[in-house]
Amino acid sequence: MVTWNNLDTLASYQKLAGLKNRVSVADVMSGDNGADRVTRYSAPMAAGLSFNYAAKEVDDEILNVLAELAKEQQLADKFKELYNGAIINTGEKRLVLHHLARRQMGDAVIVDGVDKREFYVSQQEKAADFANKVHAGEITNAAGEKFTTVVQIGIGGSDLGPRALYIALENWAKENDALKMEAKFISNVDPDDAAAVLKSIDVSRSLFIVVSKSGTTLETLTNESFVKDALKKAGLDPSKHMLAVTSETSPLAKSDDYLAAVFMDDFIGGRYSSSSAVGGVVLSLAFGPDVFARILAGAAEEDKLAANTDILENPDMLDALIGLYERNVQGYPCTAVLPYSQALSRFPAHLQQCDMESNGKSVNRFGEPVDYVTGPIIFGEPGTNGQHSFYQLLHQGTDIVPLQFVGFKNSQIGMDVVIEGSTSQAKLCANVAAQIIAFACGKDDENPNKKFEGGRPSSIIIGDQLTPESLGALLAHFENKIMFQGFLWNVNSFDQEGVQLGKLLAKRVLAHETDGALKAFSDLLDI
Amino acid sequence: MVTWNNLDTLASYQKLAGLKNRVSVADVMSGDNGADRVTRYSAPMAAGLSFNYAAKEVDDEILNVLAELAKEQQLADKFKELYNGAIINTGEKRLVLHHLARRQMGDAVIVDGVDKREFYVSQQEKAADFANKVHAGEITNAAGEKFTTVVQIGIGGSDLGPRALYIALENWAKENDALKMEAKFISNVDPDDAAAVLKSIDVSRSLFIVVSKSGTTLETLTNESFVKDALKKAGLDPSKHMLAVTSETSPLAKSDDYLAAVFMDDFIGGRYSSSSAVGGVVLSLAFGPDVFARILAGAAEEDKLAANTDILENPDMLDALIGLYERNVQGYPCTAVLPYSQALSRFPAHLQQCDMESNGKSVNRFGEPVDYVTGPIIFGEPGTNGQHSFYQLLHQGTDIVPLQFVGFKNSQIGMDVVIEGSTSQAKLCANVAAQIIAFACGKDDENPNKKFEGGRPSSIIIGDQLTPESLGALLAHFENKIMFQGFLWNVNSFDQEGVQLGKLLAKRVLAHETDGALKAFSDLLDI
Repeated sequence: MVTWNNLDTLASYQKLAGLKNRVSVADVMSGDNGADRVTRYSAPMAAGLSFNYAAKEVDDEILNVLAELAKEQQLADKFKELYNGAIINTGEKRLVLHHLARRQMGDAVIVDGVDKREFYVSQQEKAADFANKVHAGEITNAAGEKFTTVVQIGIGGSDLGPRALYIALENWAKENDALKMEAKFISNVDPDDAAAVLKSIDVSRSLFIVVSKSGTTLETLTNESFVKDALKKAGLDPSKHMLAVTSETSPLAKSDDYLAAVFMDDFIGGRYSSSSAVGGVVLSLAFGPDVFARILAGAAEEDKLAANTDILENPDMLDALIGLYERNVQGYPCTAVLPYSQALSRFPAHLQQCDMESNGKSVNRFGEPVDYVTGPIIFGEPGTNGQHSFYQLLHQGTDIVPLQFVGFKNSQIGMDVVIEGSTSQAKLCANVAAQIIAFACGKDDENPNKKFEGGRPSSIIIGDQLTPESLGALLAHFENKIMFQGFLWNVNSFDQEGVQLGKLLAKRVLAHETDGALKAFSDLLDI
Repeated sequence: MVTWNNLDTLASYQKLAGLKNRVSVADVMSGDNGADRVTRYSAPMAAGLSFNYAAKEVDDEILNVLAELAKEQQLADKFKELYNGAIINTGEKRLVLHHLARRQMGDAVIVDGVDKREFYVSQQEKAADFANKVHAGEITNAAGEKFTTVVQIGIGGSDLGPRALYIALENWAKENDALKMEAKFISNVDPDDAAAVLKSIDVSRSLFIVVSKSGTTLETLTNESFVKDALKKAGLDPSKHMLAVTSETSPLAKSDDYLAAVFMDDFIGGRYSSSSAVGGVVLSLAFGPDVFARILAGAAEEDKLAANTDILENPDMLDALIGLYERNVQGYPCTAVLPYSQALSRFPAHLQQCDMESNGKSVNRFGEPVDYVTGPIIFGEPGTNGQHSFYQLLHQGTDIVPLQFVGFKNSQIGMDVVIEGSTSQAKLCANVAAQIIAFACGKDDENPNKKFEGGRPSSIIIGDQLTPESLGALLAHFENKIMFQGFLWNVNSFDQEGVQLGKLLAKRVLAHETDGALKAFSDLLDI
């Protein structure tokens, strides 16, 4: 039986709080000791990845206390409860089952007589079957031509995760003859978003996936209408070009407006839905069902590691614990995610949602205000680009920002050039290694303007190549890290009440039922 | 004569520090007073934009003290010194002349006998002339075919600004028959970046612009070689496909490897170079020289406002001062930039560089450590997308993040659809108005999980439409805001010593001249 306690009630947390500023990264990363840390402070991840935390502000004593904290806050037990079907999302009284969409975790979870694992598998198979038929030319447009493009219409979790994963594998897929269809995404209610996408494609050869769990997301329904108008104007029957990904109880579920409907349910939150039909339909159409299955396999392998009780063998839990130390003891408000991989250009935006929407809360899971800070601000861009941009502040600014690097030994496409004796890939990897040390150790200089204080902690996830498996492992790592941090802070990471007020007020503006400042702003904007 | 003083030596700053938590945004934005503030707390900007700060934590008394601070720190005088050619970049002993590239500011600036205004104008004319010849088919490929694509090869300031501006106007240009050539960008040393771009274009119909002030930027030279290889493999002569944008003293300047070289100089920093040849060549090729001139005209009009001594008639200075109050008195470490315009999707990334690289400093302009915080962390994504993502934390997280909204009354493309009685554009605008009030005023609720504290300050820049002029004004507004904040903090906003150490260590890694932790990481990454 698990108990849900606030972080600041835990003896191990009080002990941890006494270890503030214990480790100087500049000191411990110097000399032979630094090299030794690089070897020792590394945890294997799935799909050949490894999580290296040598340049974090931890030592064996802090790690021991973090292990106590993991135990006292029952992280492993809570994860087990979660994947075995407890009502972890207490606010909405829901189970949290995105791990089950990766198939392997835990016991059978039966809800209202439905085996949820079988349900998710059946939806994956439906998506795979549909994709295979499209690829084989068994499902075509009215003229009997193959569909060449798939357009995802969704916002938030129905957009950021699937889009980040598509961009991450697009070039890999081209190199590996796995790009079956080009994918595009329409998300914003800004009409220029849909208009620009529609102008860039041949609508007669395009399939559109309307993704909304409730079937009531205003942006998505608006963009669906936008697309239907365009199809009709092109003399096409929208129902022969559109699919729905939605819940079985949604208005979209049994409509004749769609070629097919693939189902999700309330037990997989939007920001965790890349592994469900939300990611599955578009990625199976774009890359084929096998590639999507490989992403899930990588994620499932990482999930298994996340169940380990030894934090040193659980990279997801360990990352969460170190992040908690940085946020609550060291007091750092932000974390930067810095992948040295252009293919991961939108991965930070996905993590920004996943993390900030999950743990950006001020009340605990019982609705009581907490007396400590919770989720940090997450931002990031790929390196080496960021080095020529905001890294200046990271190196020499007045605030310390913990860093999360990601790097791969090999590129996806394999085209390269040797300049000054090294390939571009070697330069890319040399830069990330150099940055870790530059941030950690700094450099003294007579001129204070050229001085680097160092003491700026980072970790790095290293892999051989960004493949479907390693991408899935990366995705699951961060999902699990965020989940564990939610357990540590005792918040409900699976609701998002903070998005409701804006929606409500926007409706009032559109109904012209406003006064005061809201009416004044509406007037300024000519609404 | 101006004097350069640290912020904390100023009497007006001490007075300001005594006004911490003076204004509750939730209180002042309620009722009739809120409507009144929306009307009063607005400053006209160039190109029909306006800067509305009604929902900021200020009142008339704070504004008075901010005006005193502006005067005591001599913001207007310092700006005047800058645009009249003083050596403002003291670290590198350079003038700071990006305003002059917009033509109108100040006296003649003569350096080594060269009138710099004439120099920048001459380079714009060279770029315009070249672009006109390409568009007219006077400069073609070897087969006599017109060039259809332009690829910018550059990183940092040579990438983010021009790319953000191109994306901002791409759809506008298509609607206004101004899209002359498609533009692409190669920046990252990750070989997959260049490879993916090269695979997406017809190299025989493409022009490539190599952008490097020094002519020694490793990423850019590497990617240039990458492109040259591809051109040679396609049986093409690279020198007939490439241009250089560089300084007159760079190795690229007088090389036969390029069709033309357009010059910049050391007095326009990379992150402020969108108005120079760095933005001018690619944007003139993509949209035509007239459109680029319109961007500059909008920027120049905003620059003129930035010279006003009355802060209430100087939106750039006012924004800077309010930001300083938030950062140094209220203690907020971040600022989010949230444009309600999909076209501005990469504008936050450009501002992130411009701001964090300029003011992410710990020493003043004399190289002495400062005892106060300087530049904040900047991040952002377009709305309404962000509403379904990280806004949860902004509304209900434990930290307050000041917000900078941008909104336009009209879309760029003009395609729209009416759903539930309103257009998409109206929904977009209704959402940004609603968010300002939701953040400011919050909402009480019996259930603390559904409660919104409010008290989260924001400002909004409102315009009719995103056009070349309003985009130029927007660009200049933020550049000037950052400059004024640099003056306030007494830092040198125009150098970036913080990027050097990483470069140095990366070279050592590539030369295999490392030991300790750096060698250990290099080994892990197979370098």
